[in-house]
Amino acid sequence: MTVYDIIDAKKKRRTLTAEEIAYFVGKVADGSATDSQIAAFCMATLLNGMTDEESYLLTDAMAKSGEQTPRPAGGGIFADKHSTGGVSDSTTLILVPVLASLGVKCAKYSGRGLAHTGGTLDKLESFPGLRVDLSPAAFESQVERIGAAVAGQTRATVPADKRMYAVRDVTATVDSIPLIASSVMSKKLASFADIILLDVKYGDGAFMATLEEAEKLARLMVRIGERAGRRMLAAVTCMDAPLGDGIGCNAEVNEVLAILRGEKENCLSRLSLFHAAKILQAAEGLSETEANARASEAVFSGRALKKFEEMVAAQGGRGADVYGTLPMAKNMKKITAKAEGFLQVSALALGKACAALGGGRTKEGDAIDHTAGILLQKRQGSFVKRGEVLAEIYFNASSEEGCALAESAFTLSDQKIEARPLVYAFIGGKE
Amino acid sequence: MTVYDIIDAKKKRRTLTAEEIAYFVGKVADGSATDSQIAAFCMATLLNGMTDEESYLLTDAMAKSGEQTPRPAGGGIFADKHSTGGVSDSTTLILVPVLASLGVKCAKYSGRGLAHTGGTLDKLESFPGLRVDLSPAAFESQVERIGAAVAGQTRATVPADKRMYAVRDVTATVDSIPLIASSVMSKKLASFADIILLDVKYGDGAFMATLEEAEKLARLMVRIGERAGRRMLAAVTCMDAPLGDGIGCNAEVNEVLAILRGEKENCLSRLSLFHAAKILQAAEGLSETEANARASEAVFSGRALKKFEEMVAAQGGRGADVYGTLPMAKNMKKITAKAEGFLQVSALALGKACAALGGGRTKEGDAIDHTAGILLQKRQGSFVKRGEVLAEIYFNASSEEGCALAESAFTLSDQKIEARPLVYAFIGGKE
Repeated sequence: MTVYDIIDAKKKRRTLTAEEIAYFVGKVADGSATDSQIAAFCMATLLNGMTDEESYLLTDAMAKSGEQTPRPAGGGIFADKHSTGGVSDSTTLILVPVLASLGVKCAKYSGRGLAHTGGTLDKLESFPGLRVDLSPAAFESQVERIGAAVAGQTRATVPADKRMYAVRDVTATVDSIPLIASSVMSKKLASFADIILLDVKYGDGAFMATLEEAEKLARLMVRIGERAGRRMLAAVTCMDAPLGDGIGCNAEVNEVLAILRGEKENCLSRLSLFHAAKILQAAEGLSETEANARASEAVFSGRALKKFEEMVAAQGGRGADVYGTLPMAKNMKKITAKAEGFLQVSALALGKACAALGGGRTKEGDAIDHTAGILLQKRQGSFVKRGEVLAEIYFNASSEEGCALAESAFTLSDQKIEARPLVYAFIGGKE
Repeated sequence: MTVYDIIDAKKKRRTLTAEEIAYFVGKVADGSATDSQIAAFCMATLLNGMTDEESYLLTDAMAKSGEQTPRPAGGGIFADKHSTGGVSDSTTLILVPVLASLGVKCAKYSGRGLAHTGGTLDKLESFPGLRVDLSPAAFESQVERIGAAVAGQTRATVPADKRMYAVRDVTATVDSIPLIASSVMSKKLASFADIILLDVKYGDGAFMATLEEAEKLARLMVRIGERAGRRMLAAVTCMDAPLGDGIGCNAEVNEVLAILRGEKENCLSRLSLFHAAKILQAAEGLSETEANARASEAVFSGRALKKFEEMVAAQGGRGADVYGTLPMAKNMKKITAKAEGFLQVSALALGKACAALGGGRTKEGDAIDHTAGILLQKRQGSFVKRGEVLAEIYFNASSEEGCALAESAFTLSDQKIEARPLVYAFIGGKE
């Protein structure tokens, strides 16, 4: 068996065996397969597809290609949630304290923002002093103590995915459903969550442009996770317009705090509580009504906010009592309606605008200005009059490109806009 | 425009423009496209195909990616011939002196053997002292003087092909018709031949396993060459059994000499003269009958042999008067028929056997034992009796694998074997 033979088989549409997939992933992980061989394999997979069984085997082999995170000793049910990436999507920062305050433990490894999407780790670092590079021991002990931790992955997990992703990124082989599914799920299977909720975005600001593709990806990931013995939930949710009203790190954290204080309700709060309730149902065997009520109660009682403050403090974040509002950048520009009409807001354009204003990354490793961002004053679908303020743009370094992109995000129409459903499909959750 | 965009377009089956293909090939040649990007492009091309226009543009861009060989000053018609590779295929060594003795110049760049196929340069080096690394000036002056030179390419021609081929070789992307066609034809277009004859092999010992694929490749290369203003001829010829009776460098050179002396006639001699006559027809506007007669006459008059000796001497080969027979290796083993029946001979198995006996290369750069090889005593299709000698195997270092492979090349059948046509199709040649 050689790496060459395995590429050749995938090219000829022969279904790969467990041994072949494990062999290939082993050679990727130990560095003996070349980048060119990885690229050829990924392109052949993208164009010829994979069976469900192959996708599972690839995921499983990748999950086992490095260190796996051991389950903490203390017991309990662990939940994890993954979003395929969106704009103004801070659901993790709401869902984690809500669940932890209700006794469902969340030991969550998160990522950083790239391109037009934000990243949970960047947002957490808006709190001065907060560390996301927790050692495995510190991470475990925090989860045991307060039931919640959100950090970056520090173990040498899933090295095969790291190599494959780096190759896919430059070879136009990112958009393959089996490759996306195995990349996402290998990281989940290398960790220990009992319940995994996947939020697969569709629409303008999502990586999956069509609903059909998003649902296909969600269903494949659910099958892979179930085949590995995990309890899987997946939502296909809309990312045409930004989920919340803030875009940019401090703007989004301020919005999370407002929601946890019970001061704000919007798509972001609704989706976060929807997800939390779905996990709660699965974890505790509750009815939908009961789970929804408990999730809401966690917010309105202030317990979720308290848990959030505990988590921020545990990770070294200062000023839990003073972060009523994190500061925004010194310059502000208003975007106003040029005419009257029904408002359409592009998540993609605003995500790109935020990055151009310094609030995001165009490439890995870029520094981020946490204070740069955009605050929406009007939501998608609302009727606005000429001259009304649609959004405020905050920036330190002026960026023509950023301002132009932000302007371009707003279009007005004579016709009422039928918003696509926030949650298009929900998969799993039956006992 | 980026390399990424071009891979993405090919992946999505969008036809590439001339600018895109030139840009991509430029980035391959200057080293700025990564091996992984080349691999992804090649796999996408292999699976999604290319239009004729794309194939031509790729070939043209590759031909122009390095130095091009200038046309010698002396004038005349230049012919070139390319075989896709076979076993006991020494047609070049017969065709070149035949044509040169008839006034059609052959300034031919040849290659080395790899895997089960032999290479013209290796065979020429069977003559002690013969050099194939002629400087461009020496090559040109030899062609001017005697009308024939066969050497290795020393100029930095077609660097894009060199990189692409190295990547294709390890990524299972060799067997793509547009990629093979552009690789072969880019080297032809970077040189100056007026008439190019392509010998595309089909069958057991050929890289194209099916007739259909071989013909497709031949027709595409003809269209590419014609689009570039060259006169193109192509034959689709059989490589089920070895073309001649000798396999291995010295064995094949001895056979060439016997044919040029008019002492031997077989498929190898017939195909060599067929090709020579086809080129002669195109070069001189002769009828088929007249061209065939002249080609035969070149052999039977001894003029072709004399031209061959001139060429060998011009390139430093010694012993033109003594090379009645080049020596074979010291050990000899006979293969005899285990039963009676009609004989089938596998070119692939014999090519591999020769390489295993030291007479070929399993990987680039391997040294070759010129004296190792196989001499067939019986041809494909003949009826043999039990105990009759089928072949003699010559080797210095004993090789069980080599002997076993050679044994496996011969099978006997109760039924008469219908040989497939030596020349299945001939393309081009109309004025």
